Amino acid sequence: MFDPPMPPVLSISRRTRRTPFTRRVNQHGVKGYTVYNHMLLPTHFKSPEEDYWHLREAVQLWDVSCERQVQVRGPDAARLVQYLTPRDISKLTVGKCFYIPVVDETGGMLNDPVALMLDEDRFWISLADSDLLLWVKGLAAGMNLEVAVDEPDVSPLGVQGPKAEDTVAAVFGERVRDIGFFRYDTLPFNGHDLIIARSGYSKQGGFEIYLDDSSLGEALWDVLWEAGVPHNIQAGGPNLIERIEGGLLSYGNDMTSENTPHECGLGKFCQTVDAINCIGRDALIRSIVDGPARQIRGVYMPGPAIPGPIEPWAVHAGEAEHAGRITSAAWSPRLETHVCIGMIESAYWEPGTEVIIETPAGPRAGEVTMLPFPGAAAN
Amino acid sequence: MFDPPMPPVLSISRRTRRTPFTRRVNQHGVKGYTVYNHMLLPTHFKSPEEDYWHLREAVQLWDVSCERQVQVRGPDAARLVQYLTPRDISKLTVGKCFYIPVVDETGGMLNDPVALMLDEDRFWISLADSDLLLWVKGLAAGMNLEVAVDEPDVSPLGVQGPKAEDTVAAVFGERVRDIGFFRYDTLPFNGHDLIIARSGYSKQGGFEIYLDDSSLGEALWDVLWEAGVPHNIQAGGPNLIERIEGGLLSYGNDMTSENTPHECGLGKFCQTVDAINCIGRDALIRSIVDGPARQIRGVYMPGPAIPGPIEPWAVHAGEAEHAGRITSAAWSPRLETHVCIGMIESAYWEPGTEVIIETPAGPRAGEVTMLPFPGAAAN
Repeated sequence: MFDPPMPPVLSISRRTRRTPFTRRVNQHGVKGYTVYNHMLLPTHFKSPEEDYWHLREAVQLWDVSCERQVQVRGPDAARLVQYLTPRDISKLTVGKCFYIPVVDETGGMLNDPVALMLDEDRFWISLADSDLLLWVKGLAAGMNLEVAVDEPDVSPLGVQGPKAEDTVAAVFGERVRDIGFFRYDTLPFNGHDLIIARSGYSKQGGFEIYLDDSSLGEALWDVLWEAGVPHNIQAGGPNLIERIEGGLLSYGNDMTSENTPHECGLGKFCQTVDAINCIGRDALIRSIVDGPARQIRGVYMPGPAIPGPIEPWAVHAGEAEHAGRITSAAWSPRLETHVCIGMIESAYWEPGTEVIIETPAGPRAGEVTMLPFPGAAAN
Repeated sequence: MFDPPMPPVLSISRRTRRTPFTRRVNQHGVKGYTVYNHMLLPTHFKSPEEDYWHLREAVQLWDVSCERQVQVRGPDAARLVQYLTPRDISKLTVGKCFYIPVVDETGGMLNDPVALMLDEDRFWISLADSDLLLWVKGLAAGMNLEVAVDEPDVSPLGVQGPKAEDTVAAVFGERVRDIGFFRYDTLPFNGHDLIIARSGYSKQGGFEIYLDDSSLGEALWDVLWEAGVPHNIQAGGPNLIERIEGGLLSYGNDMTSENTPHECGLGKFCQTVDAINCIGRDALIRSIVDGPARQIRGVYMPGPAIPGPIEPWAVHAGEAEHAGRITSAAWSPRLETHVCIGMIESAYWEPGTEVIIETPAGPRAGEVTMLPFPGAAAN
């Protein structure tokens, strides 16, 4: 049974911060917002389905200013960034982006940001939805490290979709075509040198432009918009259907501080057993020795279409056993089934395992699979 | 000029957490939500104006589960809580609630929570809107303190308004009438001992009941509702008009990490110059020596009625000087003027000073005053 009334209205104030692009987002008729790092994040413009098809075919501008940066500067900066994550930061160099699981002392996930090295002693950590600034500042103060930690005036603007490269190249020049995946270059705009990374929260390709001066927000939006008109540019945002198909996890939805990176399938980003000085390392080594008891998987769930979970849906298999829970789900108009992401217990995580999902619309049959879903990347 | 479209729809998911009371809140026809500590917070049910009048006359149930607790336990718990705040924690005893400004190493506000001592070595810190858990955990880990820091399953339910005492007494007994302001008692409910404090984010009187088991949410709601029917109980939430009239500050709106407690008028809660071991103490002593350059004030702004600020409104006085900025505002149907809260520069903060406020509807005349506004507490 669904609760009335849905969908609710968002009451906004200074506390739900606007971005340098909010005026343009409103002008393009945003239909939904969420709040992410105390900031407005547009969720859809036409409908999630229409936005999905368009994202796979054209190019979209995404206001992802809510990916706030934690800036770490100073002689102890590299030491502190390494202390945050089981990923080996000694391999991070200027021009690279590293997806880093950030964990607490028990190995529980606190965020899954992207770290950029700007200089040997200067990093940006581009956040998912938690005030990681407070964790990093707290550690720095408690450990008495020689660093400055703050949130700079930096707001990423995403350009996503198969036509993103042509659009960004029309504004910033052909050099953007040489930027490798999870690499960045620095290119001029209105007297600023902007970091442009080939990255983003979709599998359709694209860039994130790290605008470092809020007053230039509309100028940057407008010049990219104009360049995108021949490619049918639209306003968009992280798309629920597309990101589930692509197996892109959402912190706070698919994982919380209860989960280790290994449960989240992020073991490939962890060099925990190497000689790194990272908080939670002992706990993570224990979890590696034991092996994770559950792990993130995809799950197919045929129709009829229902909204995704607001609270996790219990997953059963066979007799009333606990087999996991579904944390994200959406109807895929391309695969003509719901695509789900869930944390599945080890006895049931083999692809092909049949499960029962307890949705608000009653029990539904599901089938476990690996992420990403087939055809997630259109091109 | 206002941006279309307003008001926007809130896209919800597991990440915008439900509470133990959300189903009841929806059943009572909530009209707006905000997101607060990654959790749904109802903002109004009929209209802000109707909810305002009702709050001053009757009793309301408020789902303020979003006031999450940071629990600090262990031999170093009192030392750590003292390290967080310039308020002298040695005066806090079991049964008391302390409003504590929490600051960073520069004296900037990170949160303005209420601390409860549950035992000599166990505290709850009841939060405003920031992930203070990460700050406290980071300090504890960095300082290698002997404490455990976590977020327990505790969801405050507010009972606010002049009929709150009769309502709560009908459920928990006459003993609640003896609870002093910012004191708490512990009373039984369904096999649990619940903390009941005389506190809350209104000036109409009332209680906050710290429910420590989510599964009992609807049972607690229902028994209070039934007890409140003779007093015309309604569902409500922190009311923008009422809290501005009462001078109750909102973290993220009226103050941020840019502001010291002294700028926020919270100097009376700080014993900074005493022999306490608090982070940011040196910086705060400097700010006391210098005196704050600006401070929070009330500002009257006559009609016609317009919505409050999403971004701060600039305040001028005389020639185009910077005199401050308005951070919260609402039309008061009782005072028949806008009541505003703003950070006002020292040259202009005397009550009676006439200022010009740059609103999205054009410049408006205003007059500085002290907080709270007259008649804020109805009884």
